[in-house]
Amino acid sequence: MTIDVSWGGICGTDLHEYTSGPFTINTPDKPHGITGAHFPVTFGHEFTGRVSALPANYPPSGPIKLGTPVMVDPRIVCRKCNTCTNGCDNICKNWGYIGLNGGGGGGAGFSEKVNVELRMCHVLPDDGTCDLDSVVLCQPLTVGRHALAASGIADFTNLSVLVLGGGPVGLAMLLNLRAKGVGVGLSGRTFVSEPTAKRSEMIQRLGLSEDILNPMTVNVAEECRARTGGKGVDVVFDCAGAEAGMLSGMESLKVRGTYVNIAGWKKPFTLPMQFAMFHELTIKFSLGNNDNDYREVVEDFVAGKFAGAEALITRRLPVEDLAEKGLEELVRNKDDHVKIVATWRKDLLR
Amino acid sequence: MTIDVSWGGICGTDLHEYTSGPFTINTPDKPHGITGAHFPVTFGHEFTGRVSALPANYPPSGPIKLGTPVMVDPRIVCRKCNTCTNGCDNICKNWGYIGLNGGGGGGAGFSEKVNVELRMCHVLPDDGTCDLDSVVLCQPLTVGRHALAASGIADFTNLSVLVLGGGPVGLAMLLNLRAKGVGVGLSGRTFVSEPTAKRSEMIQRLGLSEDILNPMTVNVAEECRARTGGKGVDVVFDCAGAEAGMLSGMESLKVRGTYVNIAGWKKPFTLPMQFAMFHELTIKFSLGNNDNDYREVVEDFVAGKFAGAEALITRRLPVEDLAEKGLEELVRNKDDHVKIVATWRKDLLR
Repeated sequence: MTIDVSWGGICGTDLHEYTSGPFTINTPDKPHGITGAHFPVTFGHEFTGRVSALPANYPPSGPIKLGTPVMVDPRIVCRKCNTCTNGCDNICKNWGYIGLNGGGGGGAGFSEKVNVELRMCHVLPDDGTCDLDSVVLCQPLTVGRHALAASGIADFTNLSVLVLGGGPVGLAMLLNLRAKGVGVGLSGRTFVSEPTAKRSEMIQRLGLSEDILNPMTVNVAEECRARTGGKGVDVVFDCAGAEAGMLSGMESLKVRGTYVNIAGWKKPFTLPMQFAMFHELTIKFSLGNNDNDYREVVEDFVAGKFAGAEALITRRLPVEDLAEKGLEELVRNKDDHVKIVATWRKDLLR
Repeated sequence: MTIDVSWGGICGTDLHEYTSGPFTINTPDKPHGITGAHFPVTFGHEFTGRVSALPANYPPSGPIKLGTPVMVDPRIVCRKCNTCTNGCDNICKNWGYIGLNGGGGGGAGFSEKVNVELRMCHVLPDDGTCDLDSVVLCQPLTVGRHALAASGIADFTNLSVLVLGGGPVGLAMLLNLRAKGVGVGLSGRTFVSEPTAKRSEMIQRLGLSEDILNPMTVNVAEECRARTGGKGVDVVFDCAGAEAGMLSGMESLKVRGTYVNIAGWKKPFTLPMQFAMFHELTIKFSLGNNDNDYREVVEDFVAGKFAGAEALITRRLPVEDLAEKGLEELVRNKDDHVKIVATWRKDLLR
């Protein structure tokens, strides 16, 4: 089916590809296994829009009509490999994204139209409760949602949680934690390790934590321990991927605490072995997102559980300004932004 | 209460202390926090015996009589620190062992008598079903039992499990796995990575695995994958603590598989990050043993779930030969032995 794109968001991956890629984008000698696409491709894997063409066999009584607003799961997954068929479609061996690896009928999140599979569309209410620019945030929010599931922890109420890094992934993590009862004024408590003032202010403005610790000026592990009556935090989500942060994160954990890595690591991941042993730590890895994460996040978004998240959108652009006022702006002033979104539709710009 | 020791076993820790200690044994400048003891101490933390003096207030109707055979949990734990009081008595901050850190009224597993707490004694049947030399094995078996619990896996039936290292800890692991339904002729399947012929023969003789892989001659990860239909094993227990083994162990795991470390590591523990991420591995650490492990292991031992384990006793000695025919023998011919036990009681030697 075809979607008229309303809004597309710039992801850190887009920026990385723009400045120094191709990484995830395929090269001509290694086209994508499912789409056959390679560089150059249309950008944009975080997007929302309205249905403009339905599949020929789609029943008129179905929930989707022409004009229905949807959030699109941009993943290209084969549904056939032994990871897909074992419920791990986030680790599909033929994985790709519309917006990085082709598909979409040539379109993606920064084109006017894009072709998507029916099952990858999450229907939104059309009653004004969901702004299609904000709903773009559902895509990055699924990354945090997946990490919650990957932690193996079923119930987050009453837990103390340290998030390493207050960038886009850290914020997605904090918003997901709040949706699960961990945050300011809730039963569980969030701690954040973030060195920059701008990101710390954003976290404070969103009311996501009252324990924002600057790892350049305080000992994060000692602070976490002191603020949890000497026990240490229950869980750490590493959204930073830096060795010093990882070490202080692990040392912030209680006996039998859980460290979840969401960050990409370019350097070797060398554990503080003695500490891990003598605290019987659990270390988990979270990769991407799956069907369930998208379903849950869109449901929660519609239910208002991510209220206030729209503040993460720091700029709205016409697509023709994407390079200069979007990507180049992020190169210049990364810490000033969380999410920049763009549209072809002048009528949507405010 | 007082125990007349029947048998004491030599542990790898004893050997390590004997050849190059003190490590766990306290030095005069750092006496043990609970016992106040320091080097020299009486050896022996794996032992069984018969009750020879009961506490003054012990009720005559209680299950323990003079002469009752018991397996002793040798741990010295405070029951007061915040790890003890949170159900983690294996990580007691004041931890010690009778036989390494004093206590025992000066006695230990290689003395004639030893004083122990009532609650640390596990009563054995006196009907000839349990030989007190074999029951010495319960102590090392608790280490494997604890690792089963530390894995976070509730049910091992139908799982495929790779054990790295077929030494005493690896054997304890395999015996515990068999008691939980994983082993030859059972629903779950064991794989073992073990380079020495002697240990491999022992594993084979005990019927603990039909998939003993020599990491010097085969690619353990490839073999495990090939023998599990390409999937990889569900769990790895690392009883070796060598980097090459750890790497091949992780690469043997299925997507979302679990690696449990039981080994002591002297070198940095550097993970294969890409593999761990793209398989969303879980990494767990298991340390020592707790009340529950001792209770379960003794119960299972009495119930015959460790049948055949007595073959692990490779030598029985009078205590006066402990140094020359026990410790020195292990220095010379380590791979020829699993467990050497010693006794003061000439009548028990066969």
